[in-house]
Amino acid sequence: MLNVLGYAAESATSPLKPFTFERRDARPDDVTIDILYSGVCHSDIHQARNEWGNSVFPMVPGHEIIGRVSAVGSDVQKYQVGDMVGVGCMVESCRHCASCKADLEQYCANGMAPTYNGFHVHSDNLPTYGGYSKTIVVTEHFVVKIPDALDIKSAAPILCAGITTYSPLKHYGVKAGDKVGIIGMGGLGHMGVKYARALGAEVTIFTRSASKVAEAKKQGADHVIVSTDPAQMETAYERFDFMLDTVPTKHDYNPYLACLKVDGTHIIVGQVEPLDEPAIHSFHLIGKRRKLVGSMIGGMKETQEVLDFSAEHGITCDVEMIRMDQINEAYERMIKGDVKYRFVIDMASL
Amino acid sequence: MLNVLGYAAESATSPLKPFTFERRDARPDDVTIDILYSGVCHSDIHQARNEWGNSVFPMVPGHEIIGRVSAVGSDVQKYQVGDMVGVGCMVESCRHCASCKADLEQYCANGMAPTYNGFHVHSDNLPTYGGYSKTIVVTEHFVVKIPDALDIKSAAPILCAGITTYSPLKHYGVKAGDKVGIIGMGGLGHMGVKYARALGAEVTIFTRSASKVAEAKKQGADHVIVSTDPAQMETAYERFDFMLDTVPTKHDYNPYLACLKVDGTHIIVGQVEPLDEPAIHSFHLIGKRRKLVGSMIGGMKETQEVLDFSAEHGITCDVEMIRMDQINEAYERMIKGDVKYRFVIDMASL
Repeated sequence: MLNVLGYAAESATSPLKPFTFERRDARPDDVTIDILYSGVCHSDIHQARNEWGNSVFPMVPGHEIIGRVSAVGSDVQKYQVGDMVGVGCMVESCRHCASCKADLEQYCANGMAPTYNGFHVHSDNLPTYGGYSKTIVVTEHFVVKIPDALDIKSAAPILCAGITTYSPLKHYGVKAGDKVGIIGMGGLGHMGVKYARALGAEVTIFTRSASKVAEAKKQGADHVIVSTDPAQMETAYERFDFMLDTVPTKHDYNPYLACLKVDGTHIIVGQVEPLDEPAIHSFHLIGKRRKLVGSMIGGMKETQEVLDFSAEHGITCDVEMIRMDQINEAYERMIKGDVKYRFVIDMASL
Repeated sequence: MLNVLGYAAESATSPLKPFTFERRDARPDDVTIDILYSGVCHSDIHQARNEWGNSVFPMVPGHEIIGRVSAVGSDVQKYQVGDMVGVGCMVESCRHCASCKADLEQYCANGMAPTYNGFHVHSDNLPTYGGYSKTIVVTEHFVVKIPDALDIKSAAPILCAGITTYSPLKHYGVKAGDKVGIIGMGGLGHMGVKYARALGAEVTIFTRSASKVAEAKKQGADHVIVSTDPAQMETAYERFDFMLDTVPTKHDYNPYLACLKVDGTHIIVGQVEPLDEPAIHSFHLIGKRRKLVGSMIGGMKETQEVLDFSAEHGITCDVEMIRMDQINEAYERMIKGDVKYRFVIDMASL
C-alpha cells in the first residue's frame, strides 16, 4: 500500500485537516498520478458536511484533479510517465452494462464508484479518497489527457463543472442560433455560458441580482435578465429553446418553463440535493410540449471531448487559487457565493 | 346564419339540455357537416362545470365529431358532399406562426380556437359551439377524412383520445421492442395500449386496482402492474423506456420516474388541470438523464395520420353508445370511472 498525505473531514462537523491514508498498490491497468491542482466543487461541501446523508468518514474530497503521471502499470496503453492527466467524478464502473457500453459510465446500472465518498465496488471495495491529496491511483479508463493548450490550473474545474454543463448542451442538441438561458452564474453557470456560446447559441444569463448584470455581460452573455423583476421576466416569455438550470438549491422551475418555446427543454444540472422542489404545473409541459430533463456529469469519452473542445475554443474556468490550508475558509466563502468562479487548490501547498 | 339544435350547459351548475343557437353562414372555404356521432371527453365535464375557471356559457361541448358533408364552399378542395369526415379539438389557428407552419396548430403562437368553449379569434370572433349538435360549419383545414375501413361510431374518440396518445408515442420515438408503461386505463389509456402495441412496443398497464388486471390483459397489455402494490412496483424499477401517463387528476410522478431506464421519458397527457402536483425529486431526472415531458392532442396533419394508421391497424375505441338525453347521467358515470371506455352520442337521438 501507498501512504498518501491529504486533507480530510473526520466527521460532518469537523473542519478539514491533514490526514495520512493508504492507497492501493498500483495494478497493471493503473495510472499513478502526482496531483498538482484540485478544484473545489460545491458538492465537496455537501458531502464533507453530510448534507446528503450518505457520507463516509474520514473523507478526502476533490473530484477535479489535474496531475502528472508518475507511474504506469504494464497494461496501460494511453499514458506514459510525465503525461499531464485529469481525473473527474468517477474512478470505476462495471464496464459491461448498457450504459457503460454506451460511454455513459456515470449512469452505470451497477453503480459507478465516485472519486471520493464511496468504495471501489467493482474491485477491492476499499474506500475512495479524492483529490485533496498528493497522489492518486486510478484505472486507466477513468483518466483523461489534458491537452497542451489548456492552462492546467484553470482546467481542473472542467472535470466537473465543465463536463456537467457541456454534456447536456451537446446531448440535447444546442446549435448555432439557438436561444439558451443560463440560470445561475456560479461555477457551473459561467462555464455553461462559455460552452453555449462556443456552440453558437445566443446566451442569456438569468440572475436574481441586478448587481450582477455587468459581470454577466463580462462573462460573455448576450443578454441578462434579472429574474426577480417581473417586467424583465415577461420579456422572456416563450422565447427560449433551452434553459440550463445550474442553481444548486431548491427553487421554482415554473417561471423558467414559461420562458421556453414550443418543444423547449429545461435542463436541470445544479439541483443535486434530494429535496422537494416547488411543484411544477404540468400544463407548462403539456401546453407547449416542453421537456423538463436532468443530466449528471458525463462519460469518460465525453470528458475527454470537453477537454479537447475547451482547448480548441480557448475555454477554461475562471479560478481563484488557494493553499490547501485555506480550504475551510474557502468553503465558508463558497456558501456566501463569494468566489469567481471556482477555487482551485495548489497541491504543492500541502 | 344557420339555426342549429344542440345540447348546452347554461351555467356551471345546470344540467345539459336542448338549446338552439346560430352558426355562421358558410364561407367559401367552409365545410358544413351533419353530425352523426359525438364522443364524450372527460374535459367536456371539466369545462361544462367550469372546473378550469375559463368557461363561456351557454356551452355546447363535444370535440370528437364524426359526420357527413352536407355542403362545401366554392374554395373547398379536399371534400365533397357525402364524404364522411371528422372534426377534433380545434377549428381555427393563425396559420402563419412557426407552430402552424410546422403542422402543430395545437401549439399556435397566437392561440388556436377550440372546437367549443372559445371564440373564432382568427375570423369573426363568434363563440365556438361543439359536437353535441346537429350541424357544424368548419374551415376545410380543420376537417379530416374518415377512412372507409373505420367503424364511424367507434372512430369518433380517435379525434381526441386517439390523437392525444398517438402523437407523443410517435414524437418521442416509440419503436418496436421498446418497453412502454401506460398509466391509467380510461379513454386515453386504452387507446395508448393499442397504439403502443401497433408500434411494436411491449406494453405494461399500471393500474391502482387488482380488480382491473384481467380487463387490462383483455385490452392487449403484455403485462399489468398494480401500482398500489410496492412489491410489484419494485419489479418495474428502471425497466421502462417510456411512460404514457393518462391519469386525469393530481398524482405523484416520482414512483413512475423511478421505473424509467437511463434516458427514459415520462409523457404527461392526461393531467390537464392547472393544479399543483406532488413535487418531483429532481434527482430522478438528473441521476438517469430522464425526461418529464408533456404533449397536447396533435396537429391536423397528424390527426389525419392517426385516422389512417387506425384504419390500417384495425384500431378503434371501445365505446358505449348513448342517446343525447342520457348525457347528464353519462357524466356522472364517467366521474365514477363507470365506462368502457368512451361514451359516444348517437346524434340521431337529438
